[in-house]
Amino acid sequence: MDAVWRRRSIRKYLPDPIPEEVVIDLLRAAMSAPSAGNEQPWQFVVIRERRLLDEVPRFHAHAQMIREAPLAILVCGEAEKAKFEGAYWVQDCAAATENILIAATAKGLGSVWLGVYPVAERMEALRRLLGIPEEIVPFALIPIGRPAEEKPPADRYDPQRVHYDRW
Amino acid sequence: MDAVWRRRSIRKYLPDPIPEEVVIDLLRAAMSAPSAGNEQPWQFVVIRERRLLDEVPRFHAHAQMIREAPLAILVCGEAEKAKFEGAYWVQDCAAATENILIAATAKGLGSVWLGVYPVAERMEALRRLLGIPEEIVPFALIPIGRPAEEKPPADRYDPQRVHYDRW
Repeated sequence: MDAVWRRRSIRKYLPDPIPEEVVIDLLRAAMSAPSAGNEQPWQFVVIRERRLLDEVPRFHAHAQMIREAPLAILVCGEAEKAKFEGAYWVQDCAAATENILIAATAKGLGSVWLGVYPVAERMEALRRLLGIPEEIVPFALIPIGRPAEEKPPADRYDPQRVHYDRW
Repeated sequence: MDAVWRRRSIRKYLPDPIPEEVVIDLLRAAMSAPSAGNEQPWQFVVIRERRLLDEVPRFHAHAQMIREAPLAILVCGEAEKAKFEGAYWVQDCAAATENILIAATAKGLGSVWLGVYPVAERMEALRRLLGIPEEIVPFALIPIGRPAEEKPPADRYDPQRVHYDRW
């Protein structure tokens, strides 16, 4: 188990389709994330239609690579499920998103986290494109595919960011 | 590699100390998380002093288990590093936190994510306890130890949360 250390942002993909059972495993990983009060305030849209994927760069400047990807997963939040003080749903959805990236890495797939929330233009455009209801918040978009680029693990460990017992 | 699917919130620990190199590996996992613009807006406080750990339940009602834990890691955010619109540092720190939980699971350790941000009382109390500077935001606290309870994987996969191409 070293996918968590090996994960890199992969932005070039082969066109091969991703089998359904692999997609389910990625979503199972997402739903294995912890959440405040175990609220599981998340929903997912699996985007496979070429036309839909190709629309994304029109409103998301950092999403050009999605034109190559056979698939993307949009992680969405159910903000109204947040019974706790504070917007914990954001943290919960971020954990679910990270789990998808790690599970994809473990399965030899490439993926990249594209920020959506809280950029209103991206959220609105995705709502319109995919018919997402008003109470659901598009949170992060993850293009996924067999990698067409290789990246070594990035060791970002920085001892200056680590404090012991007191700052 | 199945730690991402096996991870559970573990709240009972054996008192055995966690070796330094294991702690470093957990922090290396945290710093392997992606971040918006690769800003890596995170800092970490490794808490091992018994007196400090035992103080936490005074101001965090869900932190009783920390009295048993040999160690906790406080993930902190550097909010001012957020050059992008929106508070992406929250998502980045959540991904780093999730990575610690997964890496701990992979190493046979138990851990649990205790929410700190954005609860002002918890943030302020941790700032005072650990001498954390004003510009640093205490984000999440993770007690860690050899597990004294066993939990099977929780399969939370829910097909009703998955939509294909359109809602």
